[in-house]
Amino acid sequence: MDSDEFAVAGRQMIDYVIHYLENIRDRRVFPTVKPGYLRELIPKDAPEKGETWEAVFGDIERVIMPGITHWHSPRFNAFFPTANSYPAILADILSDAIGCIGFTWAASPSCTELEVVMMDWLAKLLKLPAEFLACEGGKGGGVIQGTASEATVVGCLAAKSRKIKAIKEEDKEHPEITERDILSKLMCYASDQAHSSVERAALLGALNIRLIKSNEDFSMDPKLLEEAIQKDKADGLIPFYVVATLGSTPCCAFDSLVDIGPICQREKVWLHVDAAYAGSAFICPEFRHYMEGIEYADSFNFNPHKWMLVNFDCSAMWIKDSAELVEAFNVDPLYLRHDKQGLVPDYRHWQIPLGRRFRSLKLWFVLRMYGVEGIQGHIRQQVALAKEFEQLLKDDNRFEIVVPVRMGLVCLRLKGSNELSEKLLKRINESGKIYVTPSKLREKYIIRFCVCATRTNSEDIKYSWKVISDFAKEILEENKHDAKKPVAQLATAEE
Amino acid sequence: MDSDEFAVAGRQMIDYVIHYLENIRDRRVFPTVKPGYLRELIPKDAPEKGETWEAVFGDIERVIMPGITHWHSPRFNAFFPTANSYPAILADILSDAIGCIGFTWAASPSCTELEVVMMDWLAKLLKLPAEFLACEGGKGGGVIQGTASEATVVGCLAAKSRKIKAIKEEDKEHPEITERDILSKLMCYASDQAHSSVERAALLGALNIRLIKSNEDFSMDPKLLEEAIQKDKADGLIPFYVVATLGSTPCCAFDSLVDIGPICQREKVWLHVDAAYAGSAFICPEFRHYMEGIEYADSFNFNPHKWMLVNFDCSAMWIKDSAELVEAFNVDPLYLRHDKQGLVPDYRHWQIPLGRRFRSLKLWFVLRMYGVEGIQGHIRQQVALAKEFEQLLKDDNRFEIVVPVRMGLVCLRLKGSNELSEKLLKRINESGKIYVTPSKLREKYIIRFCVCATRTNSEDIKYSWKVISDFAKEILEENKHDAKKPVAQLATAEE
Repeated sequence: MDSDEFAVAGRQMIDYVIHYLENIRDRRVFPTVKPGYLRELIPKDAPEKGETWEAVFGDIERVIMPGITHWHSPRFNAFFPTANSYPAILADILSDAIGCIGFTWAASPSCTELEVVMMDWLAKLLKLPAEFLACEGGKGGGVIQGTASEATVVGCLAAKSRKIKAIKEEDKEHPEITERDILSKLMCYASDQAHSSVERAALLGALNIRLIKSNEDFSMDPKLLEEAIQKDKADGLIPFYVVATLGSTPCCAFDSLVDIGPICQREKVWLHVDAAYAGSAFICPEFRHYMEGIEYADSFNFNPHKWMLVNFDCSAMWIKDSAELVEAFNVDPLYLRHDKQGLVPDYRHWQIPLGRRFRSLKLWFVLRMYGVEGIQGHIRQQVALAKEFEQLLKDDNRFEIVVPVRMGLVCLRLKGSNELSEKLLKRINESGKIYVTPSKLREKYIIRFCVCATRTNSEDIKYSWKVISDFAKEILEENKHDAKKPVAQLATAEE
Repeated sequence: MDSDEFAVAGRQMIDYVIHYLENIRDRRVFPTVKPGYLRELIPKDAPEKGETWEAVFGDIERVIMPGITHWHSPRFNAFFPTANSYPAILADILSDAIGCIGFTWAASPSCTELEVVMMDWLAKLLKLPAEFLACEGGKGGGVIQGTASEATVVGCLAAKSRKIKAIKEEDKEHPEITERDILSKLMCYASDQAHSSVERAALLGALNIRLIKSNEDFSMDPKLLEEAIQKDKADGLIPFYVVATLGSTPCCAFDSLVDIGPICQREKVWLHVDAAYAGSAFICPEFRHYMEGIEYADSFNFNPHKWMLVNFDCSAMWIKDSAELVEAFNVDPLYLRHDKQGLVPDYRHWQIPLGRRFRSLKLWFVLRMYGVEGIQGHIRQQVALAKEFEQLLKDDNRFEIVVPVRMGLVCLRLKGSNELSEKLLKRINESGKIYVTPSKLREKYIIRFCVCATRTNSEDIKYSWKVISDFAKEILEENKHDAKKPVAQLATAEE
């Protein structure tokens, strides 16, 4: 494909993208394909000779679109949002063309430097403590990770390195304590509502983790955390890493940093704060009370790629003492050295992979083209839509709202048995009219309804509500009918 | 930015990309900016109100380009190549617009299914053993990782999980052996020429690693590997993971799988093969002898984003028994469950992050638009250019070629002291005429010259050669002069 062909194909693709996104409501949000559908639609082998652009372009609708779950449809109310915006797409085109790998400053200075400054911009927008900012001249700073999972792993590694160093310094009179002994005793903590990636981070590092029972608000119980830490210490274990969650995945619960922070500080335990979803909302002053106590955190992370209009992947992480990260990852071969080392961060020491794309361009384009007001407006509108949906539920006594609506997520269920809500979710998703996902809170099965797409408006909320309400009616009627049947028949009906 | 504005901006960006890439030789390959340059060029804070596209677009040349190391310039001969092609850029635009997160099949079936089939296409192109193919109906299959570093970590985790399981099954009569005991005894092995990411993988997993001395070809000495494994076993340690490298970073050396494989098989040690750079060449039959013995591998990885025209990130990994991966990562919360589980891979169990972009689109577009012949032609041309450069060196007795040229990398030095080559590299890079990186082989400092850009042609090779040759002349003359000076003066001159 030469540049003339690319000029034509590029225009065609831009137009396709516009057509796709602007008419996305017309597509069934969840596909009807069966597993394995795609293999039948394309050849068994790569072609020997190159094909035309027309052939490839034509296959987007024939092969790809039938199997797409349309995350940017206002009918998509599953999981959490993933961001998508025109400015971010433009930045990604530029990033692809520059195609630099920014593992060190020298590998492409603008790639590193724009990231340093964008992370400062973002930190200031969220009013993070000054210690997290690179422009303050201390050891703090931000980095773009691929995902919150990776931020949790990276935080864990730095925490481990800090704790091992501290113990070795304290215990100089006991040189018989090996790193291996320490490792086997290290303990992580998180709420039982924390994302599964926290457990995976511990698994990856071969570390022990204890999930602390959450209280009635589904936030980590600080008393139980305190008890667990004291008991573990009494048993000879070494608490070193606590992950607090702001905006949990099951129900958008918030751990209290004001309560957890002082415990971590006193016990010299690294506090990592995972605000993957909710963090974007902190650009609005009215939501910042949820991160009160953030000054206790050693590292903080949220995903602009979820709710801040920056396309995946862009997970923003800050750390107060970046030297601890660099030390944790310190492997420094000659072929990666350059003569400006030390003056600016070499981000390869801040992450798991070595290679990295020029992702700060997305942040820059989005922050500039929306402006702070534009992004605040986006967050506020989505929360308002969730509240509108909540009100519709409140006015209908068939439904229960399981936790108060704080951001864009509404957790609902039909009053009565879990089976009713399970049936409702299945019926909704099979219809393809909207798409929702389940969760479980204690013993309650719930339906998570999240305002996801940037194009979602009040009409969409009313549409989604009608879909849910109509199926609820069906199911409640069937159930009334089923209740009169003998038990054996009921069991069959549920298979 | 509405769709009309995006239509205009998109066209403008496509044209910018074409202009940038087609005229890239006109730009200084390595920038002259000093650390911290960028912060001075942009505001201290994000703007309150949104800016215009014109303002943002104008800043690409003003702010970004002065700090870019141009990886796609034919003057860029540093590191290894990173791929860039028009079809891949088109695929990324589509991937951004669809913006799905493909962590499970249900999250977007085409995202998972195209990846499964593309990894089969690619495996067949490389003639990987059938056990690695998903279409064979066994437990094998491929997955796109972000980087080779992540593939090494993922392989390590699966290997660990397999070994722990095996020991627990064998030692049922010794239930007192804990997982912790086993973990502390596990041993990884790699060549002392392996990429730094292998050491980092061990560090991340808190595992012991032993670097085996390479022989005169800079490939892992199989005898020393065998000895290390036997000694470790005798000392009560548990060998479980060997990383073999095909195409090492310092000098493109190849470990011998035919020699290493049988040792791993006999000792029940997981063999992971890292062919990050050289793997793309195996699409050409004449290079496949370098991967002889690949049937011994449990997992294999190479980076199409290096040398196969697919933009970063796209690191292809295959595994013979994917169940071992899934088991290693098994954390399965309700909010990620769906009713098609088990029929197709849920790639979230195959990688460190949870989220993932629709990266197989890039592979699909590139394989179709270039065809097998087109990609083979690209590889062969780049190797031919490296050979052309090698010949220029061979004809000049000032230079030494440190290892035979096998792919696109040429390792050279000036005959004589390391200082001469160090000076030469510094002079070359400071000139900004071309960009090369150093390495060290045993005690020899070398200059790595790699054919990287797709646009590199024979004229570029001659240009690069002239730059190197002219600076070599300068330095050798200066040195002749310096050699006559007293030693004290010499030291000053070198500071």
